Amino acid sequence: MSIKVGIFGYGNLGRGIESALAQNEDMELCAVFTRRDPDTLKIRTAGVPVCRAADVDSFKDKIDVMILCGGSATDLPVQTPALAKNFCVIDSFDTHARIPEHLAAVDAAAREGGHLAIISCGWDPGMFSLNRLYAGAILPDGKDYTFWGRGVSQGHSDAVRRIDGVLDAKQYTIPVKDALDAVRCGEAPELSTRQKHKRECFVVAAEGADKSRIEREIKEMPNYFADYDTTVHFISAEELMRDHGGIPHGGFVIRSGKTGFERENSHVIEYSLRLDSNPEFTASVIVAYARAAARMYGEGQRGCKTVLDVPPAYLSPKSREKLICELL
Amino acid sequence: MSIKVGIFGYGNLGRGIESALAQNEDMELCAVFTRRDPDTLKIRTAGVPVCRAADVDSFKDKIDVMILCGGSATDLPVQTPALAKNFCVIDSFDTHARIPEHLAAVDAAAREGGHLAIISCGWDPGMFSLNRLYAGAILPDGKDYTFWGRGVSQGHSDAVRRIDGVLDAKQYTIPVKDALDAVRCGEAPELSTRQKHKRECFVVAAEGADKSRIEREIKEMPNYFADYDTTVHFISAEELMRDHGGIPHGGFVIRSGKTGFERENSHVIEYSLRLDSNPEFTASVIVAYARAAARMYGEGQRGCKTVLDVPPAYLSPKSREKLICELL
Repeated sequence: MSIKVGIFGYGNLGRGIESALAQNEDMELCAVFTRRDPDTLKIRTAGVPVCRAADVDSFKDKIDVMILCGGSATDLPVQTPALAKNFCVIDSFDTHARIPEHLAAVDAAAREGGHLAIISCGWDPGMFSLNRLYAGAILPDGKDYTFWGRGVSQGHSDAVRRIDGVLDAKQYTIPVKDALDAVRCGEAPELSTRQKHKRECFVVAAEGADKSRIEREIKEMPNYFADYDTTVHFISAEELMRDHGGIPHGGFVIRSGKTGFERENSHVIEYSLRLDSNPEFTASVIVAYARAAARMYGEGQRGCKTVLDVPPAYLSPKSREKLICELL
Repeated sequence: MSIKVGIFGYGNLGRGIESALAQNEDMELCAVFTRRDPDTLKIRTAGVPVCRAADVDSFKDKIDVMILCGGSATDLPVQTPALAKNFCVIDSFDTHARIPEHLAAVDAAAREGGHLAIISCGWDPGMFSLNRLYAGAILPDGKDYTFWGRGVSQGHSDAVRRIDGVLDAKQYTIPVKDALDAVRCGEAPELSTRQKHKRECFVVAAEGADKSRIEREIKEMPNYFADYDTTVHFISAEELMRDHGGIPHGGFVIRSGKTGFERENSHVIEYSLRLDSNPEFTASVIVAYARAAARMYGEGQRGCKTVLDVPPAYLSPKSREKLICELL
């Protein structure tokens, strides 16, 4: 029997979930829920209904796992606890500082409704968190580094677009190679914000706009750019569309640590991702954890979990015996 | 209350366990067991008894987790099931093909005695297995690659030492850079044994030995060297001691895969290790899983587990709340 999945919210992430489900034969898309007029929304999977978000509760008992695809700022803090009362749910809440609060709200709702939830699933938080945990437990005498990129930051791109005279823009976060190399050597350097990442902006300016003023406003923008070395390129709208239409991302979690009675031996553990599509990869992680959520619920587990709580074997469609034979 | 640990077998791995335990404040070394005369064995930790292996059962109920440090060929298939009747046990059994059989024997013994066991813990099997599992579950439409090295292979070094006229030798397994680069690009190439790894031998020959015959015998040795490009260097016993005394190792687990309705996006997940000391790193992994074993046993779990079954949070001495705040 396949795992019945609902998608709640159909943007980039929702579309990524839809295509990831098509790669997993043990899972089945049952319905897509939207706050838009369902008639205006065309999905890719034949025969699957598009429904009003307001009608979601009528699908109670028809869906094994509801995947929430809204934003962390305002959607998920409300939607995940609300839906956890009637469904097993999974989200990609990524406001790191507010995770404990979100976890508590979702846990209370899931326990009240007798369901299981997994929050903050994806690659950071998600696979990067897991790798920080494993590496830290193995090498307690060590130091962690996380680098992001090369990849598109939606928040920084939006910040540039808000500048007067900017028609459109795309911002890339890029790890500094010298910093990566120093960390990989096991040197455990202290690195400033500027030493770890640089930023590169591709900007379409309005005709007649003062480009040097725009460039200065970008480079001096507090929080977003002032602490980084930033490069600004002015390009045409056509070039932006042609060369910067994708949503690539990735990054590195590296821990170096010492072992031995004299701390005489160094070790470096590195996990890295190079992703053509940030939302599709995030969706692929979420779908694997949706499988785990269905299993854990089936075993009688309730409440809100995170990637740190899920036994790895639960992510795979293969039996434990097969995994032990083939992968261990 | 700290977790009370016993070490069963005191070679390179046993010494690694002893030094790893010294880095983990919540764990305590209680006794070392040896098949040698205990009076001949000097350990590093003050106040800890060295006992006869034959007397181990008198420590029943005094030790939370017994860590087995014997070899996979003949020691562990006998010792792990035998000790699992009276202790929670953990081993690093690494004969991949015989893991299912070992698991069944240890599971039966552990259930009979009411204990918990974890087998095949370390980095391969171990962390590499975990990464193959996670990456495969996330990117079902993809291909896995494991590269080992640069590192010392004990089995290959021993094989060279058995050649007539060889006094001592050290063999390094080295991943081929072009193959690594092709895999990292997401090309998913088909790679032969020769294309993935090369081998390098440092050999001390007896005075007057025929070096060209030794070199030929190495390069033509079936299974060990014939399928690889092998380089042989003849050096002095002093050079071998000075430059090749360590036991470094490491490797790479890389999966590349496709997502999207048209398989239009590529992703690469890479996990790598660079280790100064293979036994000390293996020991560090085992000690983290010994902590997990004690917790799972405390929760009432019984029988034989693997790294694929253990919830990640159980490896860390930190509370779940702290992990969620700091790492997620």
